[in-house]
Amino acid sequence: MPNILFAALTEAWADYETHLRTALDAQGLDYTLATDLPPEGVDYMIYAPNSTVQDFSPFTRLKAVMNLWAGVERVVKNDTLTVPLTRMVDDEGLTQGMVEWVTGHTLRHHLGMDAHIVNPDRTWDDTPPPLSKDRPVTILGMGALGQACAAALGQLGFPVTGWSRSPKSLPFRTTHGADGLREALTGAQIVILLLPDTPATANTLNAETLALPAPGAVILNPGRGPLIDDDALLAALDANIGHATLDTFRTEPLPRDHPFWSHPRVTVTPHIASTTRPDSAARVIAANIARAERGETLHHLVDRASGY
Amino acid sequence: MPNILFAALTEAWADYETHLRTALDAQGLDYTLATDLPPEGVDYMIYAPNSTVQDFSPFTRLKAVMNLWAGVERVVKNDTLTVPLTRMVDDEGLTQGMVEWVTGHTLRHHLGMDAHIVNPDRTWDDTPPPLSKDRPVTILGMGALGQACAAALGQLGFPVTGWSRSPKSLPFRTTHGADGLREALTGAQIVILLLPDTPATANTLNAETLALPAPGAVILNPGRGPLIDDDALLAALDANIGHATLDTFRTEPLPRDHPFWSHPRVTVTPHIASTTRPDSAARVIAANIARAERGETLHHLVDRASGY
Repeated sequence: MPNILFAALTEAWADYETHLRTALDAQGLDYTLATDLPPEGVDYMIYAPNSTVQDFSPFTRLKAVMNLWAGVERVVKNDTLTVPLTRMVDDEGLTQGMVEWVTGHTLRHHLGMDAHIVNPDRTWDDTPPPLSKDRPVTILGMGALGQACAAALGQLGFPVTGWSRSPKSLPFRTTHGADGLREALTGAQIVILLLPDTPATANTLNAETLALPAPGAVILNPGRGPLIDDDALLAALDANIGHATLDTFRTEPLPRDHPFWSHPRVTVTPHIASTTRPDSAARVIAANIARAERGETLHHLVDRASGY
Repeated sequence: MPNILFAALTEAWADYETHLRTALDAQGLDYTLATDLPPEGVDYMIYAPNSTVQDFSPFTRLKAVMNLWAGVERVVKNDTLTVPLTRMVDDEGLTQGMVEWVTGHTLRHHLGMDAHIVNPDRTWDDTPPPLSKDRPVTILGMGALGQACAAALGQLGFPVTGWSRSPKSLPFRTTHGADGLREALTGAQIVILLLPDTPATANTLNAETLALPAPGAVILNPGRGPLIDDDALLAALDANIGHATLDTFRTEPLPRDHPFWSHPRVTVTPHIASTTRPDSAARVIAANIARAERGETLHHLVDRASGY
């Protein structure tokens, strides 16, 4: 009978408790689930990186930690955590939400909506936008989220290029590695960042790489704040970059005096593109605990070496 | 050797001539194509309803008229036109453009983008929008455009209801007739108008039907202006309707003093959702002329009785 500790903020417990019990029951598990358990008796920890638990060493019986968030950068460097760690890969909540945000903001910029949403001069300019087939989109990061967004945009007719660090065989144009990054960015009209936050991905968009997309190109960052060099982006907005719509930032909430707030060609969305939804996330976690109890390999294991 | 008259505005000839010659050549046709031919010698007319040709009776040898536009309401009532009339059904241009506009504006309202695009108070409210599966969308009109938009929105996870005057069997929820219209509108959160402009569809959205959608519902009208009773819509915006994004109007361009321009919860787009694109439209017309020359039935024939 496993003991499961829920180690996250109190508000999260209110959101999750019922969904977790329903999902664990549905797996046929006999368990104890609580927010407070003696450390030496805990078998599994459902964990949010903003939890008060930052030292895992007292948890001597711990078999695995299930992260509630997709991002693990705040926990992966914790040397006291030595048992398997899983990321949240919640197709229904995280992936679907990301697909909706990415598709929506891609179409918003593609169709030039902002000029219609705010049009105090009552301008009637009926020049149509190009069709999606003439709007090349590049996605950096070909994990679960990047691939799902590529599929959705491809379905709508956009020519998609997907870049990843190592080669991937996917049903659209892909490039990889440092040369492949330059190739993927060159001439792109919409660039979407869906890379994990690791030392290797920091400042992927910098002064050099931001110069590569087409004049007027749009940057969408629903990935992670550190993927962009903020100062380089502000400079590029005075050069070839037409607009940036950002959902993630180095500091969140974005400080009120940050220049992104006041820039006329930057849109700030409040880290809503992809959020864990309690109902579906609870099912993912319960299924993984059931796998562990059966002695099976966990899904969505974090590779500590690569950092995601 | 058929004589083909191009009867549209001079600007259209500049856009179309090369594309039409390329497409007619590709069909292997031997033809004369011009903007000025003796009426009694014309075999086919490529026609825009704003052409100077409004009396078809001098065209005694005319075999068919190919309308350049999807809308035929301005020509279908012309009693001097007695030969077959075809509508423009240009999947690549008209349908794809419509799918992009409809999907984009559906996602814009679904994600609550306007509050981020214009956010002078720098508000950071990270309550996520619901997922598409919890946002019921109703499309009025299940012709080629309505079905294509329903497919695209269904692919993104929206529960779609399609309404048409007569019953249709489609891979999603459909209703039909007067009772079915009430059923389709009741509780809808996004309502999309893709009906043709006929006497039967005028004021489909009126004081009575506008009261049926959910509180805060959004109306999208990329169809035809007369589908909505404008005064009833303005009144409904003070009641249950949250926003209207309109691409078509009873008078276009929308007059500068029309209240839609100044209403804070109305967005005007300048009839750009679906426009004929010369390259693909030319291929559709050339293929139909080739069919007529081979004695085959034309595609996209207008039914004069129903008006579309």
